[in-house]
Amino acid sequence: MYRTHTCGELTMAQVGKTVTLAGWMQRSRDLGGMTFIDLRDRYGLTQLVFNMETNAGLCTEARKFGREFVLQATGKVTERYNKNLNMPTGEIEIIVDEIKVLNVSATPPFTIEDESDGGDELRMKYRYLDLRRSTVRRNLELRHHMAQEVRKYFDALGFMEVETPVLIKSTPEGARDFVVPSRLNPGQFYALPQSPQTFKQLMMVAGFDRYFQIVKCFRDEDLRADRQPEFTQIDCEMAFVEQEDILQAFEGMLKHLFKTVRGVEFTEPFVRMTFADAINTYGNDKPDLRFGMKIHEVTNLVKGKGFSIFDNADYVGGICAEGCSEYTRKQLDELTEWVKRPQIGALGLIYIKFNIDGTLKSTVDKFYSPEEIKALADNFNAKPSDIIFLLPGKKKKTLAQLSELRLEMGARLGLRDKNTFAPLWVIDFPLFEYDEETGRYYAMHHPFTSPKIDDLQYFETDSARVRANAYDCVVNGVELGGGSIRIHDQELQQRMFKVLGFTKEQAEYQFGFLMNAFTYGAPPHGGIAFGFDRLASMFAGLDSIRDVIAFPKNNSGRDVMIDSPSHIADEQLKELNIKVEVKMEKS
Amino acid sequence: MYRTHTCGELTMAQVGKTVTLAGWMQRSRDLGGMTFIDLRDRYGLTQLVFNMETNAGLCTEARKFGREFVLQATGKVTERYNKNLNMPTGEIEIIVDEIKVLNVSATPPFTIEDESDGGDELRMKYRYLDLRRSTVRRNLELRHHMAQEVRKYFDALGFMEVETPVLIKSTPEGARDFVVPSRLNPGQFYALPQSPQTFKQLMMVAGFDRYFQIVKCFRDEDLRADRQPEFTQIDCEMAFVEQEDILQAFEGMLKHLFKTVRGVEFTEPFVRMTFADAINTYGNDKPDLRFGMKIHEVTNLVKGKGFSIFDNADYVGGICAEGCSEYTRKQLDELTEWVKRPQIGALGLIYIKFNIDGTLKSTVDKFYSPEEIKALADNFNAKPSDIIFLLPGKKKKTLAQLSELRLEMGARLGLRDKNTFAPLWVIDFPLFEYDEETGRYYAMHHPFTSPKIDDLQYFETDSARVRANAYDCVVNGVELGGGSIRIHDQELQQRMFKVLGFTKEQAEYQFGFLMNAFTYGAPPHGGIAFGFDRLASMFAGLDSIRDVIAFPKNNSGRDVMIDSPSHIADEQLKELNIKVEVKMEKS
Repeated sequence: MYRTHTCGELTMAQVGKTVTLAGWMQRSRDLGGMTFIDLRDRYGLTQLVFNMETNAGLCTEARKFGREFVLQATGKVTERYNKNLNMPTGEIEIIVDEIKVLNVSATPPFTIEDESDGGDELRMKYRYLDLRRSTVRRNLELRHHMAQEVRKYFDALGFMEVETPVLIKSTPEGARDFVVPSRLNPGQFYALPQSPQTFKQLMMVAGFDRYFQIVKCFRDEDLRADRQPEFTQIDCEMAFVEQEDILQAFEGMLKHLFKTVRGVEFTEPFVRMTFADAINTYGNDKPDLRFGMKIHEVTNLVKGKGFSIFDNADYVGGICAEGCSEYTRKQLDELTEWVKRPQIGALGLIYIKFNIDGTLKSTVDKFYSPEEIKALADNFNAKPSDIIFLLPGKKKKTLAQLSELRLEMGARLGLRDKNTFAPLWVIDFPLFEYDEETGRYYAMHHPFTSPKIDDLQYFETDSARVRANAYDCVVNGVELGGGSIRIHDQELQQRMFKVLGFTKEQAEYQFGFLMNAFTYGAPPHGGIAFGFDRLASMFAGLDSIRDVIAFPKNNSGRDVMIDSPSHIADEQLKELNIKVEVKMEKS
Repeated sequence: MYRTHTCGELTMAQVGKTVTLAGWMQRSRDLGGMTFIDLRDRYGLTQLVFNMETNAGLCTEARKFGREFVLQATGKVTERYNKNLNMPTGEIEIIVDEIKVLNVSATPPFTIEDESDGGDELRMKYRYLDLRRSTVRRNLELRHHMAQEVRKYFDALGFMEVETPVLIKSTPEGARDFVVPSRLNPGQFYALPQSPQTFKQLMMVAGFDRYFQIVKCFRDEDLRADRQPEFTQIDCEMAFVEQEDILQAFEGMLKHLFKTVRGVEFTEPFVRMTFADAINTYGNDKPDLRFGMKIHEVTNLVKGKGFSIFDNADYVGGICAEGCSEYTRKQLDELTEWVKRPQIGALGLIYIKFNIDGTLKSTVDKFYSPEEIKALADNFNAKPSDIIFLLPGKKKKTLAQLSELRLEMGARLGLRDKNTFAPLWVIDFPLFEYDEETGRYYAMHHPFTSPKIDDLQYFETDSARVRANAYDCVVNGVELGGGSIRIHDQELQQRMFKVLGFTKEQAEYQFGFLMNAFTYGAPPHGGIAFGFDRLASMFAGLDSIRDVIAFPKNNSGRDVMIDSPSHIADEQLKELNIKVEVKMEKS
């Protein structure tokens, strides 16, 4: 061992002891007679001291070290004159007797500090240096801690972690698969799993009744800002359970994580909200419940008073932003421009100010009597100092716009604190989604999702009305996980395929293998999967999942550090029985 | 929840209680007035009882159930008349009041029993049914348990589990990579990792000083009996350590696993043996130390007595098999045939019997005096009832033959008990291997393996003599893990490349990226990787790794259950900018 202690553990308790530390030179200060070096390792920083008077040779040598040199220092732990109580080792320093350069370092292309001077691309290229920064390292420590706690929780409940295969079979539905040519089976390909869905259901058929896995999954999508071609899921499935059992088990997991990793204790059950309520009250199916500002529909209150924009609207709804009645014209104009951006797409913004003096002032005063305006304000429980924003339009679209406006106002009002967590279950999702374009129903979750027994009566006749045993876990407006109770009854499964417009042959072709397995005594079962990267990034208080991934890829799916993907040798292609054919881009 | 209890937990303590169980019908016995059903789940079997006298309807219904039907039964826990003390629930049975068929089952293609009537291929095709067999299930439970204990051990020591990427870059050396065409980067490919070697070394450069991961790795090899294209490694690396630190840390891991998972406690340090001693004494670098029967070289004792086979031999060695002096002519002939098989390749077998009456009898009596034969026997510490087998030839080849013979005799004598574990470290591997064919040195481990400081003097002049800081962990003749201390000094690395015959350009091309990372202050570091599948299969007492893998592939790399790999759509190939070109086999 090159050290007796780490750079994070020495305190007054060790004063007088001779110790050996090893680490990187964070910085060096030269104060004439003395030289101070901050030595860094994963555990912290410790100050090394060299004295020109007592050991000129050593001090002179120490002055030659560059940033990020790897050093091994032996010396005596001594109480500092100028203590730094902001760091755990700030009360002591090491009077160095011996120093050894374990390795030199070229000058890093950016500073290894909490706030680095390196840009994104540069830091990604030298990710191994970026990872030295304690801010980045702490994210991975957190992720490690979370993974261990997830496993402890499941292990204690008798869940088994089972590794499912990575080289599987391509399926034609869903997102694009990454594929892997098989040399031993010429012309054939494996696919990388988008999720272990099939295998976890087979584990249930096999009687493993409680399965989980923290597992890499792959999706060949056009990448958006916060997507990675490979990502990690906490994948789970249980047999002989109903929806309630699943919600309990996985709410338990999140509570355990919040408590052990973040020190946040949820003593009450998570809020549960139906999909319908989430849409009508928050405008989307993953509401941020850190703040209220619910959407109120006021269609009936505003129609028929001669204001054509409202009269012609399918729906009018709004939100009440507390304490914003003093918004200036400029602020309101800016907000109006904000909702008119193409990403939101509103035509304008109507407001009612409930002034501090109790008066009401709106953009639609000429169409409504003061009593009518007051009634509107009352509908929102508005009080002096509040402002109400109204948007009209098609219901679905307007609700989506109001959702965006609500989130924006929440952010502007500081109601979306990263250290506050508002978890909930969104339940009772529709089983089917109707697609206008193709004129058919699609499974909102997947074709094995079971319907609510109470809604079976509408299954064929009013399919859109059928609710599913499907659920999402949402925290702070982010969908962290989702799942469903699966269909284990073959007759019901056939009805499902029929509504989805599958012929028997199509169903057989796409799902035959799993359906066949189900004929051998599939138990009732259901499950859930959580996005582990997202969960970790929320726990870390980050906006992106990138910094909870040790070696992430950029938006083109490239690892700029190792410069991958790359061209491969013709010999290799030949062995794999494939040929590259890159079409020229039209220019 | 479909049950109040599992099928493995009810005992006399619950007699009188009404319970609900759910599971699969293992078997049904119809004894006229009574019907007994064994209900099975992951946790065990419980006997259900139906009585024709007290509930004819229910009993008649129960008689219709087929094997593997999924049942939910409610009834009273009752003491049995005929207790079966071989099973945990054997003292009780359930007098069933209500039974529900949760799902029917087609007749399984083989019996779901510990000893199944299904052949290998059939059981692989219906792996989800094979997994219902408790023998198979227990292997995966064991694997789960081992994985959790590995993580507990490392977590407690401050190791961080870091997920390294699966989509990485193809490297031209080593075994064949599986590759993945990138749609977003036309004509370019990712590769799947053969191990996270580069990334774990980068983690050390990044200062993470204690890393581990239980991780899938991939190798596109021509598959042998016990190889899988995807396999799992316990991958580890540490910084600021020397070889001794690594051996201590990972010997600790194995001891922890043996103790917590198998109840075997090793209080003494593992045996350590140099590579040279392993070869000379056991004929190979992964000796099975469950038994002695060491190889003795007797070249000098047997030469010059006129026996030309020995006189012409480069080396003569042998083993002493205890208690085998009574071997018949037939047994000896059979053993002689065994060593002459092409897999072993000996020309014959010479033996010396030390008869129970104290006399000595050998196949070479006419060349040696009784005293010379006695001296030979004494060299092996042979005693009456033993037999000595001698083989002559080139040293390396003969040692390998003696190793095979020793293992075979160990097996025949019952000295290789699966519940006895003999772990050891093989250390001081040679750094280089000379290849006669290409006339150059290769790195025995990999080109980043560090040499012993003491042997640096021979580095260029007598390279074959240079020992490495490389080590293997061997248990019962199986190499479970191996690793090395890496080179962190750039000058030494350049010398290494030179001995290996790399030009500067070649070294740069193949290893430039890692070498560049090493210029930014790489700490001294080293690591190890264990084959997790093999470790689990040894703990499970299995000969093959297949049954500790939930969904294994066959020897052609096929998953016969999901029928993968498979052909993919032309559209998909076009998107990936590749074309399949299967050459016709010559017929």
